[in-house]
Amino acid sequence: MVRASLAAAFLWFVAAPLWASPVSHFTLENGLEAVVIEDHRAPVVVHMVWYKVGSADELRGKSGIAHYFEHLMFKGTDTMAAGELSKTVAANGGSDNAFTSYDYTAYYQRIAADRLELVMKMEADRMRHLKISPDDWKTERDVILEERAQRTDSDPGALFGEQKNAAQFLNHPYGTPIIGWRQEMEALTRDDALAWYPKYYAPNNAVLVVAGDVTPDQVRTLAETYYGVLAPTPDLPERQRPQEPPQLAERRLVFPDARVAQPYLSRSYLAPERDPGDQKQAAALTVLAEVLGGNSATSVLGRKLIFGDGSAIYASAYYDGMAIDDTTFNLAVMPVADVTLPEAEAALDRALADFLKEGIDPAQFERIRTRIRASEIYAQDNTEGLARRYGEALASGFSIEDVQSWPDVLMSVTEEDVMAAAHAVFDKRHAVTGYLTRPEQEAAQ
Amino acid sequence: MVRASLAAAFLWFVAAPLWASPVSHFTLENGLEAVVIEDHRAPVVVHMVWYKVGSADELRGKSGIAHYFEHLMFKGTDTMAAGELSKTVAANGGSDNAFTSYDYTAYYQRIAADRLELVMKMEADRMRHLKISPDDWKTERDVILEERAQRTDSDPGALFGEQKNAAQFLNHPYGTPIIGWRQEMEALTRDDALAWYPKYYAPNNAVLVVAGDVTPDQVRTLAETYYGVLAPTPDLPERQRPQEPPQLAERRLVFPDARVAQPYLSRSYLAPERDPGDQKQAAALTVLAEVLGGNSATSVLGRKLIFGDGSAIYASAYYDGMAIDDTTFNLAVMPVADVTLPEAEAALDRALADFLKEGIDPAQFERIRTRIRASEIYAQDNTEGLARRYGEALASGFSIEDVQSWPDVLMSVTEEDVMAAAHAVFDKRHAVTGYLTRPEQEAAQ
Repeated sequence: MVRASLAAAFLWFVAAPLWASPVSHFTLENGLEAVVIEDHRAPVVVHMVWYKVGSADELRGKSGIAHYFEHLMFKGTDTMAAGELSKTVAANGGSDNAFTSYDYTAYYQRIAADRLELVMKMEADRMRHLKISPDDWKTERDVILEERAQRTDSDPGALFGEQKNAAQFLNHPYGTPIIGWRQEMEALTRDDALAWYPKYYAPNNAVLVVAGDVTPDQVRTLAETYYGVLAPTPDLPERQRPQEPPQLAERRLVFPDARVAQPYLSRSYLAPERDPGDQKQAAALTVLAEVLGGNSATSVLGRKLIFGDGSAIYASAYYDGMAIDDTTFNLAVMPVADVTLPEAEAALDRALADFLKEGIDPAQFERIRTRIRASEIYAQDNTEGLARRYGEALASGFSIEDVQSWPDVLMSVTEEDVMAAAHAVFDKRHAVTGYLTRPEQEAAQ
Repeated sequence: MVRASLAAAFLWFVAAPLWASPVSHFTLENGLEAVVIEDHRAPVVVHMVWYKVGSADELRGKSGIAHYFEHLMFKGTDTMAAGELSKTVAANGGSDNAFTSYDYTAYYQRIAADRLELVMKMEADRMRHLKISPDDWKTERDVILEERAQRTDSDPGALFGEQKNAAQFLNHPYGTPIIGWRQEMEALTRDDALAWYPKYYAPNNAVLVVAGDVTPDQVRTLAETYYGVLAPTPDLPERQRPQEPPQLAERRLVFPDARVAQPYLSRSYLAPERDPGDQKQAAALTVLAEVLGGNSATSVLGRKLIFGDGSAIYASAYYDGMAIDDTTFNLAVMPVADVTLPEAEAALDRALADFLKEGIDPAQFERIRTRIRASEIYAQDNTEGLARRYGEALASGFSIEDVQSWPDVLMSVTEEDVMAAAHAVFDKRHAVTGYLTRPEQEAAQ
């Protein structure tokens, strides 16, 4: 069924940069935003639905419900048996999956372009008509508990990361693990799932991204047919999460575990995220991560710690500003065998202090700019990656323009911007430093 | 008005220990629990209402609402102007106050015994009939913000405690300050207050304690008249808070502040609380705190750190098991001028390790038992303290028997119980160690 009042739907072609695949964007009357990325090089489409809800939207005490619900979305509807969606996609030569993060939950299928209608019909069906039988939910809860056992509880690095993250955020739910705390996961019920679903799984809380061998018109027609008929959630709550209080004291953490093969230290600083319409500081932090740790041979930490004093076998810096609230800037150092973690940390602190004094080597900065430019150009060529980029951004409150201007914002960053961002972010009062170590080494330190 | 169906009210005289004031306990039909402590030595009464709601019951993002509401309770009702309650109490020669904690919010008046009806009438009035005018709430929000500015923001020790507590609890709301995080206090609204009030301020969520020159019959008659007519809240939620995940990594925290006159270190361990009907382990921890830090001249930390190696000018241990969920066992050491905080911490760790090896000196243990017995006997003589003890306990889910058996449980603790509790609680993975220090000293460490 094509709705009569197409006039109300907003169809908008974004001015495409020279190299980019054509991207179009429209919103259905019921609030569903859609992004179409054309790429006719192969007869394939990627179909994604991104819900503007993630683990940071969970109620206190209900950690894990966002990810648990992602699992339950593979149960049936009135017209689809449990597991049928994945089976149908596979039987048609496609693949499907789903993922949950702090700020979004997403579902996707990759399939032959002529099967788009098939997958869209099923995805639209489970957006509003999911049935969670009194039997299904318990089995699936066992599945997520087993997932936690395998991915987290049996991995000292993952447990370390969880404890460290909990110490990083004093108030914000980014301090709670996406998969959930075990004791809260064990207590999740069908009622929790039933309360989660109708509020958040709705066309006005979702972003549809279709990328590949399709036209915007085809997608619009299909989207009107399958998604356009779904009722929106009235009075969707604003995504306002508890914010951090001023962080006034450096925190440190030692995690001894006999299973640790290679001790390392990890330091994170609270850092601003990308803001819709204001991405400059996040761009400077993105470049800073490249300058410090982007390439082990030429980065600042690589030159100083691996090839300089020889204290480390590995050193990295990581920052991803795509978030709704304040996020983290991360450093990690794995020392060589005869260097202790406190020695490695002292070397890291010296390296950072020297960097803040010396500034950026102009030749390295130019190489990094070239690498960023190249990587952004290549990114435009990776349709599935682009689809993910738009989906993630729109589900996190960014606009199409924010996504499209990001490469330019990145390229506009100067050495001064990077140094200013470094001076602002490297405030130990906002930092957590963690040691993942073996018990006997902890005793020696 | 005396309700006809008194038969339904449960009146129960608790077997009083030899030394104790007579304590009686009854529950009104609408769910209000009452405790009466007779003490006819002076013509005075203390009248208290304890609500079973505190800051740990707040929704995430609404920190401070429990305490903010405590302030709003001094606004008016249909029959009482704003501030009238306190003014009336003062005009009748009494005093009144209120306090908010993690697990309860309480209001009390001390006044001549023949004015009990006067204060009970006003207290009952504001239990269900409070009016928060569109003007009042903003003024009062400024008051709590100013209170935070004075008590917390201008006091490095208080800020340090807040940051440390937030690092102690990875998930439980005990990690959130009772007064609230400033940015959340600033966003509290009249609507938040209006949502808080009718749910929690109700006879079936309250404990009335009257102590002094009254009889249980007098209190029951007045309580029926003023509280008995109030409607209970249907479907009161259970007080289930998010619990801690396993704490796997010791956390450390350095808080440099130029205003710090005397640096100190503070160590807290996650520790079990008193459980209704099962208070033995908490009793052992209570005795442990006495053994370690009860008296600076004879306690273990005093002997080892102040009079032994001379590293400290002050050393203390503190534990209060009166809580609904896991709480903390706390140590603090203030080093002498030429001892650094890391040196003081090393001395503390040596003292604890030695104590765990050496066990308790039997003579010290006997002295402590004598002191505890004396202090519990004196406590029975302090009617206002007793009233507070019953109110706090009943508001936290304990029974009259729990309160009354506590002295016996304390006295039943053996040296072996204390050492077992010490071995269990001193697990560094559950600990936070904080340094409150001056900036230049931090640099030296």
